[in-house]
Amino acid sequence: MSHMTLPQTDLDDAILDLIVTYHDLNPLGVDELTEEPSPLDFMRYVARNRPFVVRGAANEWKARRRWNAEYLTGVMRSQPVNVAITPHGNADSVVEDSQRSLHFVKPYDTTEPFDSVLRDIQAQEADTLPSGPIKYAQTQNDNLRNEYSPLFADVPASIPFARIALQHAPEAINFWLGNSHSVTALHKDNYENIYVQVLGRKHFVLLPPVEAACVNERMLPSATYAHVRRREQGEGRGDGGDAGDGEVVIPKGDGEEEEQLEMRPDDPAQEVPFATWDPDEPEKRPTQFSRLSRPARVTLEEGDMLYLPALW
Amino acid sequence: MSHMTLPQTDLDDAILDLIVTYHDLNPLGVDELTEEPSPLDFMRYVARNRPFVVRGAANEWKARRRWNAEYLTGVMRSQPVNVAITPHGNADSVVEDSQRSLHFVKPYDTTEPFDSVLRDIQAQEADTLPSGPIKYAQTQNDNLRNEYSPLFADVPASIPFARIALQHAPEAINFWLGNSHSVTALHKDNYENIYVQVLGRKHFVLLPPVEAACVNERMLPSATYAHVRRREQGEGRGDGGDAGDGEVVIPKGDGEEEEQLEMRPDDPAQEVPFATWDPDEPEKRPTQFSRLSRPARVTLEEGDMLYLPALW
Repeated sequence: MSHMTLPQTDLDDAILDLIVTYHDLNPLGVDELTEEPSPLDFMRYVARNRPFVVRGAANEWKARRRWNAEYLTGVMRSQPVNVAITPHGNADSVVEDSQRSLHFVKPYDTTEPFDSVLRDIQAQEADTLPSGPIKYAQTQNDNLRNEYSPLFADVPASIPFARIALQHAPEAINFWLGNSHSVTALHKDNYENIYVQVLGRKHFVLLPPVEAACVNERMLPSATYAHVRRREQGEGRGDGGDAGDGEVVIPKGDGEEEEQLEMRPDDPAQEVPFATWDPDEPEKRPTQFSRLSRPARVTLEEGDMLYLPALW
Repeated sequence: MSHMTLPQTDLDDAILDLIVTYHDLNPLGVDELTEEPSPLDFMRYVARNRPFVVRGAANEWKARRRWNAEYLTGVMRSQPVNVAITPHGNADSVVEDSQRSLHFVKPYDTTEPFDSVLRDIQAQEADTLPSGPIKYAQTQNDNLRNEYSPLFADVPASIPFARIALQHAPEAINFWLGNSHSVTALHKDNYENIYVQVLGRKHFVLLPPVEAACVNERMLPSATYAHVRRREQGEGRGDGGDAGDGEVVIPKGDGEEEEQLEMRPDDPAQEVPFATWDPDEPEKRPTQFSRLSRPARVTLEEGDMLYLPALW
């Protein structure tokens, strides 16, 4: 480590050594498989806590053949579904206010008829710079066996290699519907996750848990976007103040009333630990270890399956 | 953690939390199985880095039926074998000298005819307080496929569940021969290990890797026992000085010459990291975390098999 000048302490040295050694001993990318692993093969990935992608694993699923906007609308119709609404598509994200303070901001969560959510998501997809807030149906409450249960028959009830290896049926099966404006902030989950791309495409940027020291986790005051209406001149606003980046004004046709998403501190106030470094903007808020990060990037195409290990 | 007074820093708090949480989430002892696990079952233990014992797993091995002192002597005869010799049976141990300095001391390693090694080990077993140094055949250089190769046919060439799960034949297969005076100091290995008790009995005291902060690892000057002969009056001694606990005088019949094991610093001097806390003497050299240690104790009887995960 004699070439390193930044580490100041034994602990820093140890962290540096851990990250560098991890990358010396592990491949940099995500393993690419052409067929589903056996339960034993899968368990080897779980043991090493390493992700893999299976190209085309879901090609034979009914969902792959059936799902499109028309089919989904025909099945779900105007059933109410949860939808997360954010100014720019960033759900659960770190937002810097005009005083340059950081906040952890959750979407405005509401319930809308499925057909109108799908229509909005499609319409916004066409806009390069959408004028209104971004909608993303992304609850993680086992929604495919609940509010989207009419669609559940189109997917397998479990992923056999994972169920057998982990000796557990899936705790939650979630259906997500978004568009290319939806971005999920860098985060980690305590679950083993199998993600399947049925339609469209998703870009993942994955960091191994050993890079925890790279992501500059901080305690941030939590806030939630609130949906407020106001007159042009700003009458009737909520708690006031300049919401900075957290404010979006939505012209409603040519009427004088507007819809607006406003960032509001949670009440009672609370702080949550959250990563403030983003590998896609590495110069912002780095730690001394961020430059050691080796993000694994993988794009899922239709039919692809990703094993996302716990804590990645 | 408000009941804790010892932790001084965030790091101490985090270490304490890690150890306590680990024990909250894991059983305290070693899982007991009655038959060998499948490769998939085994991989689940590897993934969780948890030990298990399979009672009687080796009962059908030829070694279990054949091996005894007479058979081993008949096969191995006077073939030269490596033997580790220490004053009290502690191989690779931490020794406090008369100035209360700690040393990491390696055995005197030599080569002797197998039949005489076995005879000495048996004879010392009969003594409650053996007068001479303790012998232990315990090399880890794949000796069962080398110096003890005549015995290799009596054991399986590999443990199938482990070979299949890990996709690797054993890197080393070792035969150890000792008696009840042999004690191995607390240490860890970077290998997945399957230990089988063919004859006799062995007591294991196992700590999970998360308890690293409990064992008070320090850099210790390394030394090796050297075998010297001297006259009664101490003429012809090596580097002199009081070797304290590291010196044992062996009366050789009623002759005037004696054999002696003397602790000698390695040349060139070097330091090695080694645990200085012993869960069997918990009041000696503890860290603030040692009291959180929950050693798993397991005794292997003849025919039992232990999976000793890497770093335990």
